[in-house]
Amino acid sequence: MTEFFHVITADQFTELLIRFPRLSSEKIPLDASLARILSDDIVAFEDLPEQARSTVDGYAVRAEDTFGASDSIPALLEIAEPVQMGTIPGYALNSGQAAPIPTGGFLPRGADAVVMVEYTNRADEKNVEITRPVTLRTNVLDKGEDSKSGEPLLPSGMQLRFQDIGFLAAAGFSEVSVYRKPKVAILSSGDEVVPVDCRPRPGQIRDANSHALAALVREAGAEPILFEIVPDNAAMLRQALETALSQSDITAISGGSSVGARDLMKSAVSSLNDTEILAHGIAIRPGKPTLLADRKGKAIFGLPGHPVSALIVAQVFLVPLLRHLQGAALGKGPRGLRIDATLTASIHSTIGLEEYVRVVIEEKPDGTYEAHPVYGKSGMLSTMVKANGILVIPMNVEGLSKGDSVQVVQW
Amino acid sequence: MTEFFHVITADQFTELLIRFPRLSSEKIPLDASLARILSDDIVAFEDLPEQARSTVDGYAVRAEDTFGASDSIPALLEIAEPVQMGTIPGYALNSGQAAPIPTGGFLPRGADAVVMVEYTNRADEKNVEITRPVTLRTNVLDKGEDSKSGEPLLPSGMQLRFQDIGFLAAAGFSEVSVYRKPKVAILSSGDEVVPVDCRPRPGQIRDANSHALAALVREAGAEPILFEIVPDNAAMLRQALETALSQSDITAISGGSSVGARDLMKSAVSSLNDTEILAHGIAIRPGKPTLLADRKGKAIFGLPGHPVSALIVAQVFLVPLLRHLQGAALGKGPRGLRIDATLTASIHSTIGLEEYVRVVIEEKPDGTYEAHPVYGKSGMLSTMVKANGILVIPMNVEGLSKGDSVQVVQW
Repeated sequence: MTEFFHVITADQFTELLIRFPRLSSEKIPLDASLARILSDDIVAFEDLPEQARSTVDGYAVRAEDTFGASDSIPALLEIAEPVQMGTIPGYALNSGQAAPIPTGGFLPRGADAVVMVEYTNRADEKNVEITRPVTLRTNVLDKGEDSKSGEPLLPSGMQLRFQDIGFLAAAGFSEVSVYRKPKVAILSSGDEVVPVDCRPRPGQIRDANSHALAALVREAGAEPILFEIVPDNAAMLRQALETALSQSDITAISGGSSVGARDLMKSAVSSLNDTEILAHGIAIRPGKPTLLADRKGKAIFGLPGHPVSALIVAQVFLVPLLRHLQGAALGKGPRGLRIDATLTASIHSTIGLEEYVRVVIEEKPDGTYEAHPVYGKSGMLSTMVKANGILVIPMNVEGLSKGDSVQVVQW
Repeated sequence: MTEFFHVITADQFTELLIRFPRLSSEKIPLDASLARILSDDIVAFEDLPEQARSTVDGYAVRAEDTFGASDSIPALLEIAEPVQMGTIPGYALNSGQAAPIPTGGFLPRGADAVVMVEYTNRADEKNVEITRPVTLRTNVLDKGEDSKSGEPLLPSGMQLRFQDIGFLAAAGFSEVSVYRKPKVAILSSGDEVVPVDCRPRPGQIRDANSHALAALVREAGAEPILFEIVPDNAAMLRQALETALSQSDITAISGGSSVGARDLMKSAVSSLNDTEILAHGIAIRPGKPTLLADRKGKAIFGLPGHPVSALIVAQVFLVPLLRHLQGAALGKGPRGLRIDATLTASIHSTIGLEEYVRVVIEEKPDGTYEAHPVYGKSGMLSTMVKANGILVIPMNVEGLSKGDSVQVVQW
């Protein structure tokens, strides 16, 4: 039995991930860019709006013509040619004139404010009464007020949301440059593991890891590639890793919860050329027997075979790496919404191990939250399903008490 | 000028949405099921695990054989045939025996606990010393402990997360029944609106709404279908709506911020056969001129032309409807992570209108949050980009003061 030869802390493990370089960028259609991360700053090439526009239905005026106007003493203005949507008026508005203008319409030259239709009365065919004064630029979106030509619209490293996509469309970008999606090769190993659509013979189990990891990888914006299950055989493991590495940016192989299987995986990874094992063992629970290697700039994650351990390690370390490769800042996992909650039961923990406790986060009627630890043996996938959050207990903490204020991460 | 003939509150509008029926279900591969919503309860068809398994590397024993064992007085047991991964041992463990077993291995008949390898010493080829006692079922995952044949695994209405997919794989489900993704027809109208890849002529603007709405629809788990821009023409609007309705489950048409354009849209919708206009006008800001109609069970959303208004209305009302059609409970929008924050500036609001204020949510070093209102005219898309959250001011509130505790929804 070989001992872990390089156990490191969760923080040290996270720091190792920074060595893997960001992926190259690619140009994609705007409509495919949701949740992608910009690889370049985007700079406006024109003013938005191109000319001053009205933000209301009403009359474009010279503001000074409305000064002092009221219900009792309205300002009487001559009606100029109405502004049409989609064209810039060809005339200049003179003093004493008011031009009917729809919301979004462009102001004629000379006009510097818009009076809302609610504060006007049509006196006759040729004249309109203004019953409220407006100041300069009232109800006007000025030329370049939304964005100015030559100024930055969105910075590189930004993850695109629906409104950013709208902004880019308005500014004339039908394509954007984003970091490539990482391709993640996913392998399960183990003589006892069979595909999900097989009926296991006695003693065999179905491959849960591949499918859960694929979903997690997809959720992190990356593209999973599922490979066939690899038996516990050093040569076959090595060959499977070679194939996976050639087709992907990251290889994640799970399997081997027993000491023998773990040794086999380490041997297989060690036997690859130009490959450095960076860590074998993390001071965490669950997930201690995790391996990290660097094959010419590509990460190899050796995940535990137990689904619960594999998924927690992937959530805490693989997801931040996937986001880093796509241009986001590398942060310590687990990522997700952090919620302040009161712990409803005491939890024992071991000094020297960072522990991940599955919890049910419950919102109380007063808007506060409670975190209930989920009981059940660590190997039970059902505990991951019952849980909707995870509580991280730092390595220097011996345990938490019922009633403690904790921060949990939503799943 | 036609007035809104049916202005209702945001709550009333949300309640109208329940009339639209959930979509039918479809069977899809497990690997495509992330974030989809189950249309049926899923019931286990076998026990997981099928037989008792070890959760550690060690020795399978009869617990009673270890009682009183200690470092000074170990229990000496005869080594039985080692358990192999992937097979169920064919023999029964006798009293006085211990079988080497890897993590995940199946216990032989007669064994009822596992001693971790750390608490054992190999005495010689045939015998092992046990230095700690174990109680019944220690380090054992029992037959059916993770899930029991005939018992529910996951309930209908549940949105699948990565761990649920792992659980379903372990339980032998390679396909799942989920609600269909709603197809959402997206149309922009307006004589002044041109496609994003066109160079607008003076007075024209690019179609921001279609692309932002498509992204929002996709984020809500639905499938956008983008149509060509429709001019401000009643007959063409009507024809475009007919085509869109025939190809989708929901039709969202934006356009017409001016009173004239709004009237045109209402006329076009009214002219469709078997169509009931449920609302025209919501007591909200921005987004008041919103139209909702029911065409034989399919919703027609008439959204404002202003991108900011259109996107906020879509976020607050369309997204909850999309989730409802996919089997989720109908809740009032906006959906998203709610964060308690301190408001850093006072905001005026109008009694009788529910208002949506764009805010920047900032986390302070002490873990608390501040919400800074985003200034800028309501028509500016850049304000949506600067904001990372939204603050809802209820209709009976006249305004909020600097320093107030508020709940904001993250964007």
